[in-house]
Amino acid sequence: MKRKVTLKQIAKDLNVSISTVSKSIRNSSEIGEETRQKVQAYAKLHHYTPNNIALSLKNRKTKTIGIIIPEIVHHFFSTVINGIEHVANENGYNVIICLSDESFDKEVLNMEMLAKGSIDGFIMSLSKETQFKGDFNHITEVINQGMPVVMFDRVTDEVLCDKVIINDKAAAYEAVQSLIDKGRKKIALVTTMDYVSVGKLRTDGYTKALLDNNIAFDENLILKIEDIANSEITISTFLKDKAIDAVFAVNELFAVTIIKTATKMGLNVPNDIAVIAFTDGIISKYSTPTITTVSQRGKKMGAKAAKILINRLESEEEEEGEENYRTEVIATHLIERESTI
Amino acid sequence: MKRKVTLKQIAKDLNVSISTVSKSIRNSSEIGEETRQKVQAYAKLHHYTPNNIALSLKNRKTKTIGIIIPEIVHHFFSTVINGIEHVANENGYNVIICLSDESFDKEVLNMEMLAKGSIDGFIMSLSKETQFKGDFNHITEVINQGMPVVMFDRVTDEVLCDKVIINDKAAAYEAVQSLIDKGRKKIALVTTMDYVSVGKLRTDGYTKALLDNNIAFDENLILKIEDIANSEITISTFLKDKAIDAVFAVNELFAVTIIKTATKMGLNVPNDIAVIAFTDGIISKYSTPTITTVSQRGKKMGAKAAKILINRLESEEEEEGEENYRTEVIATHLIERESTI
Repeated sequence: MKRKVTLKQIAKDLNVSISTVSKSIRNSSEIGEETRQKVQAYAKLHHYTPNNIALSLKNRKTKTIGIIIPEIVHHFFSTVINGIEHVANENGYNVIICLSDESFDKEVLNMEMLAKGSIDGFIMSLSKETQFKGDFNHITEVINQGMPVVMFDRVTDEVLCDKVIINDKAAAYEAVQSLIDKGRKKIALVTTMDYVSVGKLRTDGYTKALLDNNIAFDENLILKIEDIANSEITISTFLKDKAIDAVFAVNELFAVTIIKTATKMGLNVPNDIAVIAFTDGIISKYSTPTITTVSQRGKKMGAKAAKILINRLESEEEEEGEENYRTEVIATHLIERESTI
Repeated sequence: MKRKVTLKQIAKDLNVSISTVSKSIRNSSEIGEETRQKVQAYAKLHHYTPNNIALSLKNRKTKTIGIIIPEIVHHFFSTVINGIEHVANENGYNVIICLSDESFDKEVLNMEMLAKGSIDGFIMSLSKETQFKGDFNHITEVINQGMPVVMFDRVTDEVLCDKVIINDKAAAYEAVQSLIDKGRKKIALVTTMDYVSVGKLRTDGYTKALLDNNIAFDENLILKIEDIANSEITISTFLKDKAIDAVFAVNELFAVTIIKTATKMGLNVPNDIAVIAFTDGIISKYSTPTITTVSQRGKKMGAKAAKILINRLESEEEEEGEENYRTEVIATHLIERESTI
């Protein structure tokens, strides 16, 4: 059997990016005509077909769900997988996981690979690079060909499909409000340099909580950290100069580093500085003091995403409509621990 | 296209276990003749063929590696995946991950699914249940049909294939020796109830270090923990009654729980009790005090396993011999942190 040419191969042969090949084949006006024609001619010559899913989908169920996530170093994605696995097993489905490593190209290639007959549908969270590029053709293409996709956590409005999210803004608001309720006046936000969709929403929630409580928003109380491993001096300067009495950190690695730095400076957590982290993982549970967190409920998100996908897969067989996409919002809650009490 | 019957389907239809079906098809004498004949007849009737790999393998490379691991909640397996991904990407290979959830059946089904044309070879670590059952037919079958398998960490002598391990016994020996060198006299071992292969080896290393230093082995200094989340009373009783001055714990979750319990009892870590954990993860790095660990070097194990597999895949194409299996031993080292200094 002759092997079918892939997006990757075309990109390599013509020395252009995968994104360019994908857009050229879809006749996107973003690509110059010369390149478009070259790519299209080459694709035709080599019998490239964008994932021939639709043809075979109705006859051949794999009973397998494909998961594409950015990484698994963070505990959050592990818990999501856990939730998906649980529901999948209950319903007789297998699960296959691929990592995008936050890379657009890897996300596209993994989807292409899995869509070629290995799976019935996708559960995915976007890579940072995909969010940055704003190129979602690989996802809409899969959906257009009849393969359902459920997005979770890092989603985009530009793709019509089922989604499972938490209300990042409301969750951040609740966390900051709880610090205000405890009498904290100088509440800092410690966040990442790059804004993935959720980072922006958490900042909005932080800001809104301050304003609703008539606390002036002060840009100088926002610290953006590039490399947490080498941030001790930055953090200690920040805490000292601004006379911070509370910190809302967008992840638990930031929170534990802030606590360790503050403790070294002779400050007491929570008495001098209260700390809340977004994301509840094992660090928060085992740190000293233990850390108050916003629980993202990864397991619940995963379970819900799997339920939605399996429902859609099984109702497809009954030729039902596919257009009533839903966005499910999972409730978060604050887990109070020693860092704020 | 009619769907081929699977092991799982046969097991379900005949109301026997997957293991029974697998063994019956291989004509294993472990299964009674009546059952064997019934399964074989049924399999023949439904055209069951044990993963038709060999037929297509030479023509159709997927350039994809399949990983099967017990779970991803522990940081160790995440780091192994990291190492595999890195080498795979460098060599133009994709990676697909499936979890066995420590279940024999899921391990078998995942292998069956992936071996049907999705991947070129496996990198895997055995589930607890598979080790307990001692049934490795699903693995030898895949290998016999020409698909290479590299095992790591949890391996077995009963399967001939490439393996990547650490010397668990030597690593445990080194950790315990370091405690002895620091003048500790009553060194406890805190381990799991069930013996996976590595647990046994770590116990052997602990025992040997004691004996080589003329310290009497005392069974009462070994504590086996079933459920670490509810073990505080067990641990505090153990530490007090035995006047323990050092603990070697087989994982970092045990170690951090011991440290928290000891601290609550008014004991100082490391002054009153020194603690070393097997496995270097994020808990050890961010706990207070930070924890001295034996680094398993997951990333290096993964990278080595991927190199061996890819070498074998690419040399196969040149029709080289496949019988020179190697077992690669990755060196561990002790990362000294605050819990022992």
